[in-house]
Amino acid sequence: MDREELFRKISIENNKKLVLLVLDGLGGLPFKGRTELETAQTPNLDLLASESELGLSHPIAPGITPGSGPAHLSLFGYDPLRYNIGRGILEALGVGVAVGKRNVAVRGNFATLENGLITDRRAGRIATEKNREIIAYLQSKITEIEDVEIGLYSGEEHRFVLVLTGDGLNDALTDADPEAVGLPLLYARAKNDTAAKTARIINLFIDRLTAELATFHPANTCLLRGFAQHPAIPSLKELFKLKTAAIAVYPMYKGLAQLVGMDILETGRTIEDQINTLKKHYADYDFFFVHIKKTDSYGEDGNFAGKVSVIEEFDRWLPAILELRPDVLVVTGDHSTPALLQAHSWHPNPVLLKSAFQRQGVQPAGEFSEKTCAKGILGNFMAMDVLPLMMANALKFKKYGA
Amino acid sequence: MDREELFRKISIENNKKLVLLVLDGLGGLPFKGRTELETAQTPNLDLLASESELGLSHPIAPGITPGSGPAHLSLFGYDPLRYNIGRGILEALGVGVAVGKRNVAVRGNFATLENGLITDRRAGRIATEKNREIIAYLQSKITEIEDVEIGLYSGEEHRFVLVLTGDGLNDALTDADPEAVGLPLLYARAKNDTAAKTARIINLFIDRLTAELATFHPANTCLLRGFAQHPAIPSLKELFKLKTAAIAVYPMYKGLAQLVGMDILETGRTIEDQINTLKKHYADYDFFFVHIKKTDSYGEDGNFAGKVSVIEEFDRWLPAILELRPDVLVVTGDHSTPALLQAHSWHPNPVLLKSAFQRQGVQPAGEFSEKTCAKGILGNFMAMDVLPLMMANALKFKKYGA
Repeated sequence: MDREELFRKISIENNKKLVLLVLDGLGGLPFKGRTELETAQTPNLDLLASESELGLSHPIAPGITPGSGPAHLSLFGYDPLRYNIGRGILEALGVGVAVGKRNVAVRGNFATLENGLITDRRAGRIATEKNREIIAYLQSKITEIEDVEIGLYSGEEHRFVLVLTGDGLNDALTDADPEAVGLPLLYARAKNDTAAKTARIINLFIDRLTAELATFHPANTCLLRGFAQHPAIPSLKELFKLKTAAIAVYPMYKGLAQLVGMDILETGRTIEDQINTLKKHYADYDFFFVHIKKTDSYGEDGNFAGKVSVIEEFDRWLPAILELRPDVLVVTGDHSTPALLQAHSWHPNPVLLKSAFQRQGVQPAGEFSEKTCAKGILGNFMAMDVLPLMMANALKFKKYGA
Repeated sequence: MDREELFRKISIENNKKLVLLVLDGLGGLPFKGRTELETAQTPNLDLLASESELGLSHPIAPGITPGSGPAHLSLFGYDPLRYNIGRGILEALGVGVAVGKRNVAVRGNFATLENGLITDRRAGRIATEKNREIIAYLQSKITEIEDVEIGLYSGEEHRFVLVLTGDGLNDALTDADPEAVGLPLLYARAKNDTAAKTARIINLFIDRLTAELATFHPANTCLLRGFAQHPAIPSLKELFKLKTAAIAVYPMYKGLAQLVGMDILETGRTIEDQINTLKKHYADYDFFFVHIKKTDSYGEDGNFAGKVSVIEEFDRWLPAILELRPDVLVVTGDHSTPALLQAHSWHPNPVLLKSAFQRQGVQPAGEFSEKTCAKGILGNFMAMDVLPLMMANALKFKKYGA
């Protein structure tokens, strides 16, 4: 029996509520002896840590630094080496386009072509409003190529998403992106015979788009990459019988949540907005994924103090979440993003799990930090076990075997 | 995606240096309350431990005692349950014989046959010089059997290695060794049809050798065991893009290192010699495996004080290694060999990892010991994750997924 079969078999519904609070890129590395989390003044998290089970979780495996996609799949209980989610799919889900088995989704950039050479891979970062106009125009001109339906969706600035709908499509294509300026357009190439039709459609699309946009300089051509089909991933409903909702601000995280079947709740851009959304819908679901993005953004920027301040802001809102009295609450990251590295890293995630059925460590932790989590009763474990642990603590798993 | 695919995909080259120091059989069990490592006076290791990440690693899995082969494969990043390295292969590599896909390698003993019965399984432990004479004579007489080439190589005392080269060879044979005196010669038996040819060649070889050595009493026959083909194991270069070298004294460890593609550096028999070799070649490679054997030898002998003294000797040389300022340094064992058990054991290995990107534990460990490693920030983990962790800490792994 594999773990997914096991989950399907033993999961049951009850009225208990799970809340998974993900501070993106939470884990860090020490600067002057203290990590971002250790530096932040977090009286509410520290108190909660003293009453919770703590541990450190590996998103993929020791030493492996994950992208956001595999890191979140892992947090949602999936084996991140089993499912490969192409970037195009994430982008499509992020702009609110449902993707299914007859789709190939693609990340697009508007770009500038001059005298047959790409001179700007982002078309001068055109305004999002301009992008919307161009996409509306293009969509009115190009609706299908051969028997394949063409769907076009604006992103921010120069970014858009192309979704093909049809039969016999396949995502085994090389990127149609020279990845540097001063080079001519690069067409997609099929990596195998089954992708030949898709390559042909894509390359016809590039020519059609470029012809339609002849007078639209600087946005007069496109680069396409991240061709991706829907991974055949079972939903959280199927695996865990959970009614799930996501409260996220950024497209990619909404996309990831939607991929595993979560409802995406409308929310604002602040942590306060997100918590108000949680309160508003608290009766409607039994699992909430709340995604706080800015910890990661500051980490990526190398802004140690900025990351500290987001953690502190989150800490101030924590009591409002605790007032809801979730049956199982987890606070963790999807991966570490130490400001020191200005990038995602392999260091395991601090994990705090609060439930009525927890054990206690040797002594109260006194602090929510990488250090105290390293000594926590949950030990070092795999992030894909976080959701099963939440299920267990909510008594939503039956016994396995007699 | 399996872990090897993952490593191939994410590993990159840079100029950072990794040093893996393996004290064979390092871990122990307490005698008068302290293990060998806890008893040893190791001021340098203790100081280093205070500035390092610590943990305990399982060579194979909790409760499993490994031989040297699987224990080292694990330290080199391989799943030790995936690859089976036959003893014959290790012996062949250890005497410096390259083995490939058309080979079957075999461990041989010269033995004494009297009146049709084996009377000494080691031919009175003949001198190594005598062994060399006999092997030279035999090799001049026996160069092939049917279409299979016969290669003969002297080991120490009564030991030799036989390497068959040819097509259609297979190692699924029972040992040609009665394993006791007072019994007649035992011939090899094919475990399945594909090994029938190899069994026939081996048994013809035993008869030819015995006929040739009729007047060579006490070395007048042979016992053959550990029939082994080369496991199709990818090199460290293929998996991790590492340029690797081994500094080991004993044949088996050189053989193991060579099997995964390491260059074997000429060195002397003392720890000082090994460290001088490390210094001399430090610029030429980006990964060094330094193998210290005597900790295990004393452990196997039940010589607690002897094992302590080797650890203390190593500690005195540690500063000379630290002077090289490796980017990532690991000190560990391949398995535990408690003097109390006089054998390899299942107890996990103390692991110390020093890098610029390490986290800090709750308090300085103050000591490198099984106890402090058990409380370390690396937790309990698998020894096959040691090399991936080293790769990560050397920034030699790209992010997995978007």
